[in-house]
Amino acid sequence: MSERSLKFFAGSSHPALADAISALLKTPISPLDIRKFACGEIYAKPVDSVRNADVYVLQTGTQDVNRDMMELFILLDSFKRSFAAKVHVIMPYFPYARQDRVATPREPISAKLMADLLSKAGADHVITFTLHSDQEQGFFDFPVDNLNARSLFADFFKKKNIKELVVVAPDVGSAKEAQRLAKILDAELAIINKVRPKHNVSEVTHLVGNVEGKTCILYDDLVDTGGSVANAANALRKKGANKDIYLAATHAVLSADACEKLRSANFKEIVFTDTVPVAKEKMLPNMKIISVAHLLADVIHNVHTGLPLTPLINP
Amino acid sequence: MSERSLKFFAGSSHPALADAISALLKTPISPLDIRKFACGEIYAKPVDSVRNADVYVLQTGTQDVNRDMMELFILLDSFKRSFAAKVHVIMPYFPYARQDRVATPREPISAKLMADLLSKAGADHVITFTLHSDQEQGFFDFPVDNLNARSLFADFFKKKNIKELVVVAPDVGSAKEAQRLAKILDAELAIINKVRPKHNVSEVTHLVGNVEGKTCILYDDLVDTGGSVANAANALRKKGANKDIYLAATHAVLSADACEKLRSANFKEIVFTDTVPVAKEKMLPNMKIISVAHLLADVIHNVHTGLPLTPLINP
Amino acid sequence: MSERSLKFFAGSSHPALADAISALLKTPISPLDIRKFACGEIYAKPVDSVRNADVYVLQTGTQDVNRDMMELFILLDSFKRSFAAKVHVIMPYFPYARQDRVATPREPISAKLMADLLSKAGADHVITFTLHSDQEQGFFDFPVDNLNARSLFADFFKKKNIKELVVVAPDVGSAKEAQRLAKILDAELAIINKVRPKHNVSEVTHLVGNVEGKTCILYDDLVDTGGSVANAANALRKKGANKDIYLAATHAVLSADACEKLRSANFKEIVFTDTVPVAKEKMLPNMKIISVAHLLADVIHNVHTGLPLTPLINP
Amino acid sequence: MSERSLKFFAGSSHPALADAISALLKTPISPLDIRKFACGEIYAKPVDSVRNADVYVLQTGTQDVNRDMMELFILLDSFKRSFAAKVHVIMPYFPYARQDRVATPREPISAKLMADLLSKAGADHVITFTLHSDQEQGFFDFPVDNLNARSLFADFFKKKNIKELVVVAPDVGSAKEAQRLAKILDAELAIINKVRPKHNVSEVTHLVGNVEGKTCILYDDLVDTGGSVANAANALRKKGANKDIYLAATHAVLSADACEKLRSANFKEIVFTDTVPVAKEKMLPNMKIISVAHLLADVIHNVHTGLPLTPLINP
Amino acid sequence: MSERSLKFFAGSSHPALADAISALLKTPISPLDIRKFACGEIYAKPVDSVRNADVYVLQTGTQDVNRDMMELFILLDSFKRSFAAKVHVIMPYFPYARQDRVATPREPISAKLMADLLSKAGADHVITFTLHSDQEQGFFDFPVDNLNARSLFADFFKKKNIKELVVVAPDVGSAKEAQRLAKILDAELAIINKVRPKHNVSEVTHLVGNVEGKTCILYDDLVDTGGSVANAANALRKKGANKDIYLAATHAVLSADACEKLRSANFKEIVFTDTVPVAKEKMLPNMKIISVAHLLADVIHNVHTGLPLTPLINP
Amino acid sequence: MSERSLKFFAGSSHPALADAISALLKTPISPLDIRKFACGEIYAKPVDSVRNADVYVLQTGTQDVNRDMMELFILLDSFKRSFAAKVHVIMPYFPYARQDRVATPREPISAKLMADLLSKAGADHVITFTLHSDQEQGFFDFPVDNLNARSLFADFFKKKNIKELVVVAPDVGSAKEAQRLAKILDAELAIINKVRPKHNVSEVTHLVGNVEGKTCILYDDLVDTGGSVANAANALRKKGANKDIYLAATHAVLSADACEKLRSANFKEIVFTDTVPVAKEKMLPNMKIISVAHLLADVIHNVHTGLPLTPLINP
Repeated sequence: MSERSLKFFAGSSHPALADAISALLKTPISPLDIRKFACGEIYAKPVDSVRNADVYVLQTGTQDVNRDMMELFILLDSFKRSFAAKVHVIMPYFPYARQDRVATPREPISAKLMADLLSKAGADHVITFTLHSDQEQGFFDFPVDNLNARSLFADFFKKKNIKELVVVAPDVGSAKEAQRLAKILDAELAIINKVRPKHNVSEVTHLVGNVEGKTCILYDDLVDTGGSVANAANALRKKGANKDIYLAATHAVLSADACEKLRSANFKEIVFTDTVPVAKEKMLPNMKIISVAHLLADVIHNVHTGLPLTPLINP
Repeated sequence: MSERSLKFFAGSSHPALADAISALLKTPISPLDIRKFACGEIYAKPVDSVRNADVYVLQTGTQDVNRDMMELFILLDSFKRSFAAKVHVIMPYFPYARQDRVATPREPISAKLMADLLSKAGADHVITFTLHSDQEQGFFDFPVDNLNARSLFADFFKKKNIKELVVVAPDVGSAKEAQRLAKILDAELAIINKVRPKHNVSEVTHLVGNVEGKTCILYDDLVDTGGSVANAANALRKKGANKDIYLAATHAVLSADACEKLRSANFKEIVFTDTVPVAKEKMLPNMKIISVAHLLADVIHNVHTGLPLTPLINP
Repeated sequence: MSERSLKFFAGSSHPALADAISALLKTPISPLDIRKFACGEIYAKPVDSVRNADVYVLQTGTQDVNRDMMELFILLDSFKRSFAAKVHVIMPYFPYARQDRVATPREPISAKLMADLLSKAGADHVITFTLHSDQEQGFFDFPVDNLNARSLFADFFKKKNIKELVVVAPDVGSAKEAQRLAKILDAELAIINKVRPKHNVSEVTHLVGNVEGKTCILYDDLVDTGGSVANAANALRKKGANKDIYLAATHAVLSADACEKLRSANFKEIVFTDTVPVAKEKMLPNMKIISVAHLLADVIHNVHTGLPLTPLINP
Repeated sequence: MSERSLKFFAGSSHPALADAISALLKTPISPLDIRKFACGEIYAKPVDSVRNADVYVLQTGTQDVNRDMMELFILLDSFKRSFAAKVHVIMPYFPYARQDRVATPREPISAKLMADLLSKAGADHVITFTLHSDQEQGFFDFPVDNLNARSLFADFFKKKNIKELVVVAPDVGSAKEAQRLAKILDAELAIINKVRPKHNVSEVTHLVGNVEGKTCILYDDLVDTGGSVANAANALRKKGANKDIYLAATHAVLSADACEKLRSANFKEIVFTDTVPVAKEKMLPNMKIISVAHLLADVIHNVHTGLPLTPLINP
Repeated sequence: MSERSLKFFAGSSHPALADAISALLKTPISPLDIRKFACGEIYAKPVDSVRNADVYVLQTGTQDVNRDMMELFILLDSFKRSFAAKVHVIMPYFPYARQDRVATPREPISAKLMADLLSKAGADHVITFTLHSDQEQGFFDFPVDNLNARSLFADFFKKKNIKELVVVAPDVGSAKEAQRLAKILDAELAIINKVRPKHNVSEVTHLVGNVEGKTCILYDDLVDTGGSVANAANALRKKGANKDIYLAATHAVLSADACEKLRSANFKEIVFTDTVPVAKEKMLPNMKIISVAHLLADVIHNVHTGLPLTPLINP
Repeated sequence: MSERSLKFFAGSSHPALADAISALLKTPISPLDIRKFACGEIYAKPVDSVRNADVYVLQTGTQDVNRDMMELFILLDSFKRSFAAKVHVIMPYFPYARQDRVATPREPISAKLMADLLSKAGADHVITFTLHSDQEQGFFDFPVDNLNARSLFADFFKKKNIKELVVVAPDVGSAKEAQRLAKILDAELAIINKVRPKHNVSEVTHLVGNVEGKTCILYDDLVDTGGSVANAANALRKKGANKDIYLAATHAVLSADACEKLRSANFKEIVFTDTVPVAKEKMLPNMKIISVAHLLADVIHNVHTGLPLTPLINP
C-alpha cells in the first residue's frame, strides 16, 4: 500500500465519467485551473499542491482530440514540475490508436508517437480500454494496463439467453477479438470480408462463415462514422441472418452522420461503453451505455494500494 | 556543403509563406498527404521518399495551434520512420512561447514542453522568429536559430526619417527588446508600467520616460487581443505624445476582436511580419506586412550548404 | 547516395543466405572474428577497420536463438566502439516476434524487448521479413523496414493457375494476412477457429468459411512445431476440401518433430522462404524454398544509395 | 510525509549558512570526506551510509565557482552510487546563471549546461534563489524551486517607512524584477538605460523615469564588480535624486574591487542576502546581510514532509 | 526501512543457492513460470502480482550463459511491465566480466554491454561478486554492489595457521587482488609472468618473487579451463615451492576438461565459492565449496531495510 | 573520407602541444574567445562559424584541472548549439582517471563521471593517452581511442641497448602495464609491493622479483607528487640494483614538490611525454620530454579521412 496520498484530477474531456469515478472512489475531484485563450492556446495546472502525491488524471479522446492531447501534455508538465510522486493517466479511449502500423509507405505510427509524447511530458503509467490492437501495449516504455470491456458485454448478452448466436467481426482485422467474445458466449464466429476484386471495380462484401437463421452480434472496438457496421448489417440480412442484429462496441466515437447511419441500420440494440462521452442528441432509443466507472474506480484503488488487477479483469 | 538532397515541405498552417519561400529557394514544395478525419484525428505523411534527404518543414502557430502542433508531431514521426537524414523545423511563430516561466505556483512551462515534444517526435533543429524571451533558446536540447525581425523593422522606420522618436515598450517585460530597437534607430526609450495599487482597486497605467511632443513606436513581440497596445496608445496620447503613433510587432496573432481594437486605437501605421498568416478580413487600411520569406529562404540555403548565418542576421 | 563505403558482414546464423546476398550485391563478406569459448561466452569483432563505414550485418533467428541474439549484441557493440557510421541489421526472421502482447497477466513483450536491446547495443536500422504482427514496427524507436514475402508467394501460386482457390488462415490471428494473399490471388478466404467449449473439454476445430471441393492454401507467417497446420489440413479434408492442399509460410522454424508432422499431413506442396536456414535432413520431397536473397540485395543497395524501397516492395 | 530519513550535507562553499540551516532544522550536518589533492583533483564522499535516505546537499557559487561545481558533481556521483533515494541540491546562488541566452553568435548557454550536468551527475531537484531570469526554470528537466528574496527586501524597506520612494533598475534587463518590488512597496519605477550612440562614442547613461527629489532603491539580482551600480548611483544624483540612495541585491558576488566601488558610491545602506558568503574583509559599515537560512530550513522541512511551499514563498 | 514487500525470485541458473538464500532470509521463493520452447525461445514471468513490490531476482552465469542472460532480460521486462517498484538483480557470477577492455583493435567491451542491456531491460541495482576488475563498477549507470569473497577465503586459510605462506597471482593482471589477500594473511606475494619472447617461440613462464620452500596459495577470480592454474602449480614446484599448493578462486566456471587438469595438478586443496553451481560429477575429493548464501541473505536484508552494507563487507 | 571541413581548436590548457599539432596537421588553430571573469566564471566560444564542420578540440588536464574541465564543457556546449557536425575531444591526459573504482565504501567513480559529463556537454568521441586502467574505455558510451605511449618509450630505450634490463612497476596496480613494456624490451619484470603489516605499523616496501646488478626502468602511467617513485628508487638500490635507474611515465603531473623529490632520487634519466605541459621551472637536467604531437596529428588525420588507427598504434 502506498503511504502517499491519492489525488484524482479530471481534464476537460469527460466530466460525467470523472464524477462517477470520484463518487465510487469516495475521493473528490481535485480542482484544476484550465483555460483556453482566445489565441487557441491552453493553460492548465492544479489549483492545490501535488507535492509527493500520487496523481491520477482522467482524460479521454473526444471529437476534439488534439485539444484533449495537448491539454493532457500541459497538465503532465505542471504535475511533473510541481513534484508529484507518480502520475497515472487514465485514458479510457486512447486517441490515434488505429494508426498502429505502416500500412502504406511512409506512414507515421501515431499511436506509438502518442505513447512517446505522454512519456516525455511526464506520464508514469497509462490505464486504457481496448486498444485497437493488443500489440500497442508494446508501444509504451512504461507500464500500461489495457483493460477490456469484453466481459461487460458478455454479461450483457448472457442475460438475454439468445439461442443460435453468432458473433460477427465487421472486418478481418477484428476477427481475433470477435473470436474471444464468441468463446465466452459459446457462440459461433463469422467475419465480414470486404474485397475490391480489381482496381476500378467497386468493393464486394463477402461473408466468411454462416449466419443463416441466426442472431448476430456485430462486435468491434469502436464505431466511428458507422458506415462499415451499417453495411455489415445489410450484408448479414442478405445472407439470411435473423433480423434482430445487435451492435456492440467499446468506444462510441460516432463522427459525422454516424447516428443517422446507425438509425437506418435498424439494429435490435446498440451497446457502447462510456469510454467516450456521447452527447444527448446522439443518443438513439435503442442505444445502451454500459459504464466503465466501476471498473476504473476499482482499478485505481488497487493500483494505489498495490493490489493485483487480475481479479478485477478476469473475475 | 551537404551532399544530401534538400526537400522542402509545408504543413497546412501557412501556405502563402511556403509558396514564397519555395519560389525564392527555387525548390518546389514536396507534396504531403495531410487529412483530418471526421473523428478529429490527423493523418500526415510525405508522398515521396525522404530516405537520406535533408528535410525542411514549415509549420507556424495559428489560431488552431493545437492542430498545428499535433500535425507537426505526426509529420516528424513519419519523416523519422522513413529514414530522413536530418529534419529541420521552420516555425516562424513558436506556439506557447509566452508560457516560459512559473509565474504562479504549479504553472507548466509549456514553451519548454513544446521544445521537448518536438525533440521526441523527431526534430533535429528549429528555426524560429523572436521567441517571447531570449532565454527560451536554452529550452532546446538541440540547435535552435532564433531569428529576429528587429532589423526589418529598423529598415522600415529609418526610411521615414522621423525626428524626436521614442520606442515604447507596452509593458516592463518588453523593455529590453524595445531598448534594442531604440538603439538602432537612435531613439529614446519609454516604458508603460501597469500597476494595481491595491487589490480591489483598478489598474493604473504609469509611463516611465517622457514622450511629450514626440513620435512613438509601440513595439512588442506580438499582438494578441490588442487590448494592451490599444490602452498604451491612449496613455501615450494623454501624456502628450504626438498623435502619430506607430505599432510594430513581429507576430500578428490577432485573436478575438483584436482588429476592432486596433482600428479604434487609430495608429498612424501598424507593421507586422508574416510569421503568422493574417486573414484578408483582418487586414486594416493602415496595416503593413513585411515578409520574412527572403530571410528564411536565405537561412535555409545557408544551413543546407553549411554557410554561417551571422551575415544574414547582422548584415 | 552515401559517400561512405558499404561493408557487409554476416553473423554465424545463416552463411548460405549471406553468400547469396554477397554474390548479388557484388560485395564480399567482410571477415568477422567470432569464437565461442568453452565457458559458453561469445567473442565477436570485425577483423578490419569499420571507421566511418556503413555497416550491414546479417543475422537471423535459428534454433539457437539466444546465441544468435547475444552474438549480434556483441557484434553491434564492437561496431559502435570502432566508429562505424551507421549499423543496419538485416534480420530476416526476427526472434521472439510472437511474444508481441500481454496475453495473460504479467507476460513480457519480448519482441519489444529485443527491439530495445538492439537499439541499446548499437543498431540504427533493422530490415526484417513478415513480423508476426504489423504493429511490431512501432516497437522500434529507429527506422525498421518490415518486408513481406507475400508477393513472392503470389507469384509462385499464380503460375499454377489453380481454379476455385481458397486461402485458409490456420487461426483467427492470421486472418488478416491470409486475406491479403487471397486478394492478390483473387481467391476466397477461410479461417480455422479453434475453440475449447468448456475447461475440461478438448478443443474443437471449427471452420469459418467454405472449402468444399476447393483447393486450399494454408498460409501463415511461420511453421514452428507443425502441429496446427497438420491439424488444419485434416480439418479441411473433413470439410470436403480438394485433397491437394498447399502450405505456404515465410519462416521455416521447424522445431521438434515438425518435419514428421508435415510429412504425414501429406501436403501437395510446402513453400517456405529461406529467412531461416533449413537443414538438409529437414527437407521433404514436396518442400520448395523461395530465396529472399534477391530482394535483400536490392534493399541493401537502395538503402545505401538513398533510393526508395517502395518500388522493390510493391513492384 | 516521507518515511525516509533526511540527511543534510554541506559542500565546502558556505559553512556558515550550512550551520545556520542545520541549527534551524535541528538536524546535524552529516559528515563528508572532502579533499583537494596537490594535483588539483577533488575527492568527495559521505562518511556514513546514505542508503535509502533523502539527501539534501548545500553548495553555492563562490569566487571559486568551478571548484564549487566540480565538487558538487563528484558528491552527486557518490550519493547516486551509494543508493541515496533522492538527492536535493540547495544552491542559493546558481553559478553561470547570467549566461542564459545566445547574445552574440555561437555563445554557449552555460546556465542550461549547468542544469544538464547537475542532472547527469545525479541531482533530482534544485532549490535556488533569484535566478538571473525566471525563464531559467525551464532549463531544468527535473523540478526546481526558484525562491526569491524580494519579500525579505520588502520587509526590510517597509519598516523604514520612506516617502517618495522609487525602485530603480540599474539596466533595462532588470526592469521586470524592479517593477515587482516597486509594486509591493507602492513605489515608483525608474530604469537606467545605457546606450552607446555610435561605435566609437562612449556610452551614455539615460534615465527612463523621474527621480527628482525622491529616495531611490537600486535593485538588482546580484552585484558583481560593482561598476554599474556605482555609476547608476552617480547618475541618479545627477538627475536630482535624494542623496540617500539604497542598494539591494540578492547575491553578493563582489568580485575584484567591488567593495572599493561600493564604498565610494556612498550608499545610505547596502542590503544583501547570504546566498553567497561575504568575507569579513569585504564587509562595509553600511552593509546589511539578511539571512536566507530561515526560509531554506522551512523549505527543506516542507519538501521532506510533502507540505506545499507556497505559504512559505507568498506568506 | 522500505514499506514495500520483498519478493524473492530465482531464475533457472542456480536453484541450490536460491534455496539456501530463501531459507536464510526466511522468505519463500516466489514462483516463476519459465519455459523453453522447442524453437529455442524462452518464456518467463512471475506467477503472482509484483505490483509495488521490491523484487530481488537471483540469476548467475553458468555454462549456458547466453540462455542465462536472455532469461534474465525477459524476466526483467515482465517485472517492469507488471509495475514492480524496484528490481534488484543478484548475479553472483557476472557473465562476460573478463571482456572488460579493448585489448586488440575493435574488440567489444561485452561486460559493459551486459551492464547496459540489464539497465535497458529494467534492472535498478546489481549485486555481484568479485568482478574481473574493480573498474567494472563504473560500467553501471545505476548502483552496483561488488561483493568480494576475499574475507571468506582469508577466514578459511587463517584457521590452517600455515607458516611461510605466499599468495601467488597466476598472471600479472591478478596481482592486485592477490596482494590484497596476502595483506590479510600476512603472507608474501609472488606473480607468474608468462612471456612469449618472439612470435614463433613458445611461451615462457617466469616467476616474479620467491617461493622456495614456502607454501603457496594460487589465487584468482575464477578458474575456467584450468590450464593456467595447472601450469602455474608446475612452475611453482619447479621453483622449489613446498609441494602443498592450494588453489583459491571465487568463481568455479570449470569449462571443458578443467576438472581433469585440476586433478592432475595435484593441489593440496581447492577452494571455490558457490557463485557458480558445480555439478556433482565435477566435484573432486580435494575440492571445498564455501557458500556465499549467508552473505547474500544479509545483503538483501540490509538493502531492503536501508541498513549499510559496510559492516557486512568489512566485518 | 569526410566531405566536411576539419576545424582544429585548442582550449587554454596546453598551447605548445596545440601549436605542434597544428603545424604537423598543416591546419591553423581556429580562434576561440575564452575569458575568465573576475567572479571566476569562464566564457568560451568559437570566433567563427562551425556549422557542419568536424571539430577537433584539444584540452588536457593540468594543475588547474577543474577549470580545464569546465572550460571544455562550456566549449562543447557552444559547439553543439552552433551546429558542429561532430565534436572530437583530444584529451591527452584525462583528468580524474585514477578515481576509477570504489576502493572504500561510497566513493565516487569520478573518471566515469567525467566521461558522462563530456557526453552530456556534447562530445562525440574522445582521443586520450594511457588511461589509468584499460577498463576505463568502458566508461564511455561513445567511441574512445585510448592511445598508449608505450611504443614511444620502447623506441627510446631500445636505442640505449641496455643489457640486463628490468622494468619495475612502482606498485602492484601498475604491474600489467610494466609487463607489456618488459615484453617489448625483452626485459625482466619486478614489482614494488608496499604493505602495512598492522594498523599502527609503518609501511614496508617489498620487492617482488630480482633486480640485483641489473639496470631498472621504473615505469608508471603518471608521476604526481613523486613520492612513490622516489621511494621505489631507494628500494631498488637497497636490493642491489645497478645505480643507473631510469624513470619513464606518460603523464608528468608533477604536483607539490615532485621536482625536488625527483632530483634527490638521482635518476639516470627521467622520460615523460608532453601530454601534460611541464613548466620550464620544473624541468630537470636529466629530464627528457617525448612529444605525442606526431602521433596525435596522424590520428586526427586518419579519423577525419576514415583511415584505420591500428597502423599508427601498432606500427
